[in-house]
Amino acid sequence: MINNTSISSEIIKRQINNSGIKNIGLASIREMRKIINKIEEESGQKFIRMEMGVPGLKPPVVAMEAEIESLQSEVSSKYPDIDGIHELKYEISRFAKNFIDIEVSSRSCIPTVGSINGAFISLMVAGRAHKKQDTVLFLDPGFPVHKQLVKMLGLKQTNFDVYNYRGEKLRDKLESFLASENISTILYSNPNNPSWICFTEKELQIIGELANRYNITVLEDLAYFAMDSRTDLSVPGKAPFQPTVARYTDNYVLLISSSKTFNYAGSRIGMMLISDKLFDADFQDLLEYYSSSNFGHAVLFGTIYPTTAGVSHSSQYGLAAILKAVNDGKYKFTYEINEYSERAKIMKSIFCNNGFKLVYDKDEDQPLADGFFFTVSYQGMSGEELVKALFFHGISAISLEATGSERKEGIRACVSQVSQNQFLELEKRLQQFHQDNNVNHKNCHILEHDAAMLAIQAATSSNEVMLSER
Amino acid sequence: MINNTSISSEIIKRQINNSGIKNIGLASIREMRKIINKIEEESGQKFIRMEMGVPGLKPPVVAMEAEIESLQSEVSSKYPDIDGIHELKYEISRFAKNFIDIEVSSRSCIPTVGSINGAFISLMVAGRAHKKQDTVLFLDPGFPVHKQLVKMLGLKQTNFDVYNYRGEKLRDKLESFLASENISTILYSNPNNPSWICFTEKELQIIGELANRYNITVLEDLAYFAMDSRTDLSVPGKAPFQPTVARYTDNYVLLISSSKTFNYAGSRIGMMLISDKLFDADFQDLLEYYSSSNFGHAVLFGTIYPTTAGVSHSSQYGLAAILKAVNDGKYKFTYEINEYSERAKIMKSIFCNNGFKLVYDKDEDQPLADGFFFTVSYQGMSGEELVKALFFHGISAISLEATGSERKEGIRACVSQVSQNQFLELEKRLQQFHQDNNVNHKNCHILEHDAAMLAIQAATSSNEVMLSER
Repeated sequence: MINNTSISSEIIKRQINNSGIKNIGLASIREMRKIINKIEEESGQKFIRMEMGVPGLKPPVVAMEAEIESLQSEVSSKYPDIDGIHELKYEISRFAKNFIDIEVSSRSCIPTVGSINGAFISLMVAGRAHKKQDTVLFLDPGFPVHKQLVKMLGLKQTNFDVYNYRGEKLRDKLESFLASENISTILYSNPNNPSWICFTEKELQIIGELANRYNITVLEDLAYFAMDSRTDLSVPGKAPFQPTVARYTDNYVLLISSSKTFNYAGSRIGMMLISDKLFDADFQDLLEYYSSSNFGHAVLFGTIYPTTAGVSHSSQYGLAAILKAVNDGKYKFTYEINEYSERAKIMKSIFCNNGFKLVYDKDEDQPLADGFFFTVSYQGMSGEELVKALFFHGISAISLEATGSERKEGIRACVSQVSQNQFLELEKRLQQFHQDNNVNHKNCHILEHDAAMLAIQAATSSNEVMLSER
Repeated sequence: MINNTSISSEIIKRQINNSGIKNIGLASIREMRKIINKIEEESGQKFIRMEMGVPGLKPPVVAMEAEIESLQSEVSSKYPDIDGIHELKYEISRFAKNFIDIEVSSRSCIPTVGSINGAFISLMVAGRAHKKQDTVLFLDPGFPVHKQLVKMLGLKQTNFDVYNYRGEKLRDKLESFLASENISTILYSNPNNPSWICFTEKELQIIGELANRYNITVLEDLAYFAMDSRTDLSVPGKAPFQPTVARYTDNYVLLISSSKTFNYAGSRIGMMLISDKLFDADFQDLLEYYSSSNFGHAVLFGTIYPTTAGVSHSSQYGLAAILKAVNDGKYKFTYEINEYSERAKIMKSIFCNNGFKLVYDKDEDQPLADGFFFTVSYQGMSGEELVKALFFHGISAISLEATGSERKEGIRACVSQVSQNQFLELEKRLQQFHQDNNVNHKNCHILEHDAAMLAIQAATSSNEVMLSER
């Protein structure tokens, strides 16, 4: 493999060998991260890091102040209530009304140790509510950790890639799974990780209607809340609102992360919003695992109590303060996360100008939003080969292999760790890659020379051209 | 039922009726708590609250300062490493050496979302390491939430009350369970909740030897670390050390809580110390649930990652600061928790002076330590009846019914929420109780008139005789 980039291919090869990883193209995110850290340390040079979906912005000041105040009032010695402190539950309920336009009473709004903890709790209960319904259906592509979670819990799983089943086509495809009557829950992320597709209202309606008909719980992972850049969700109580299946069924649990939307990943706090109807529902089969057949009781006293006993007290005050500011219209949270869509727009064009194609590119007839992730491919290469080839050019990403996608040629790029002052270097490395791989293929859906130029201008005009960020 | 105490029995009756609880003698802690709050609100008078094991002291200043500093450096936007921040892992490992006198490398020292989360994680892995070993053995009495946890996970459970099997007798009794070869793990708390018995070195050796012989993992819950008042564990690196099964087997996971020992319950952070040998061990049957058969991998990437993705970043800095101060000998943590044993000593004598007997009273031939909990009974009453009768005298406790104890006459009293200025009132209410129940039976193992007098003096000499604490 030819490598004319600034990072020595000797060092890259040696560190891959040292790691014991046989195929860097299929390495997990955390394995890759470990190798890159060592390469950067040895070479003194930086990767363009697109492998990991970690937030790259600062936490809100209002949260920091509220957390500090709560610590000074000694909350750290007191057990928080298992279902969350009153102030936070109240603000989550307001947030649901203001930004999703749904009514969820505060008792059904529960903080969790990150939104992944909400997925765990929901699957523990909804996944076992009907003995005969023993399988989780993933609308893929999806977050590999969700799949790992279902396996770890000992539940069965099935999936399909929605790529060829957008719009009305989704109905028949979904029914072909639901008709077997073994599905307990449907799980998907919206916007989607890794592809950044967003379900349309029509698709959400289909999912909701079928959930009602087949008595299935929908777990809607809103890890990237309000990050569909095509709509502005920043004004409380005013349309547009976050699209959600909750408008079409009462069989839902919404999982909202504060990690990306509020840059609050370190506080390990997410939100679980259970429909009031589901919260109060009884499922006799739960008695095999819990002292009560009631859904809400099984969530709170049956699952949260014996697994974490609730969320860090000070983090709860921090998130309550963020939500209060957002609900009161005093903190426009979308302003900060728009940074990601600006980066995505430019990075997509740099890729497309150098022989890449977008893989997932449309929501029905609309071009995809610019956001946290995007997916690309390069002619003649599988995703696995592409990840490896880019790695030797100092660019890291992951293949779509583990995400349930059928587009095995695709890779996922995350924009959060790539700062604008790295765009010039990204352009340089991709040009080199394209030259090395000798493909004369410029066919990109969003080829925008202007955007590419903008990128380069942004980078060169920056005061800090040194690649100082991770 | 006669009630001459200051809290109106009308109010008590009405609030019990309103709650829908049929039998207050068997109410759960949280149900009872709810009713008491309402009674106190309506009557304007305070219960003597012995039902709930919550810490009653202040969090360490060193933790608060470190947490605040970490928040100011913006850790709340950054995902913590799943296995814990380096500083904390290092200090946990030092703590193990300094106060338990065992070697556990820092990679096997893992922060968890409270020590209950460590129990959950351990059971998820150790409880499924051998397909044929599908049952958890509780050495009872025990913490009811542990039993709930095992049921929720879908694992089988069995138990026996160690009351009649102390010392060498424990061996045969244990073997009668282990011989059936279906036990995966043994779980117990030491000191014990609810009885405050502590296993002796001889007993821990028996448990360790049998764990080796039958290939069983021991989950040792050290929720009340260093709280056996008979020994002073406060000097780092100097004997005596915390007694532990880890001296007798490598098949262990130690679960250390920061809630009571460091008054840090609100930060939701505990410690899981896995023996290095177990951490590295492989169990083929884990592959049904995890991508790796390795114990440590299944714990970190298989269980923690998809259920919480780790512990609040700032809480980790807080606990690291506590442990560093403790390890450096700069913070004598046992000084503060000695308060609990002082309270227990006095409260036990007030009870014993008024017709009560201790239920669990000895560790082999040694009188029990004074600590967080103690257990008492009253002639002619079951635990359930006693809880109810005391409730009408403004004193709350829980029966041993749900703890796996065979001593159905017993109740558990927790000292943490009872301040010394309530002792006079406790004495008054118990005298009234004893008079109402008309039993002329004074036979207490630790009857100490002096201690009772001391209690009354402490209370009357207090500047604040009003019952201001919850």
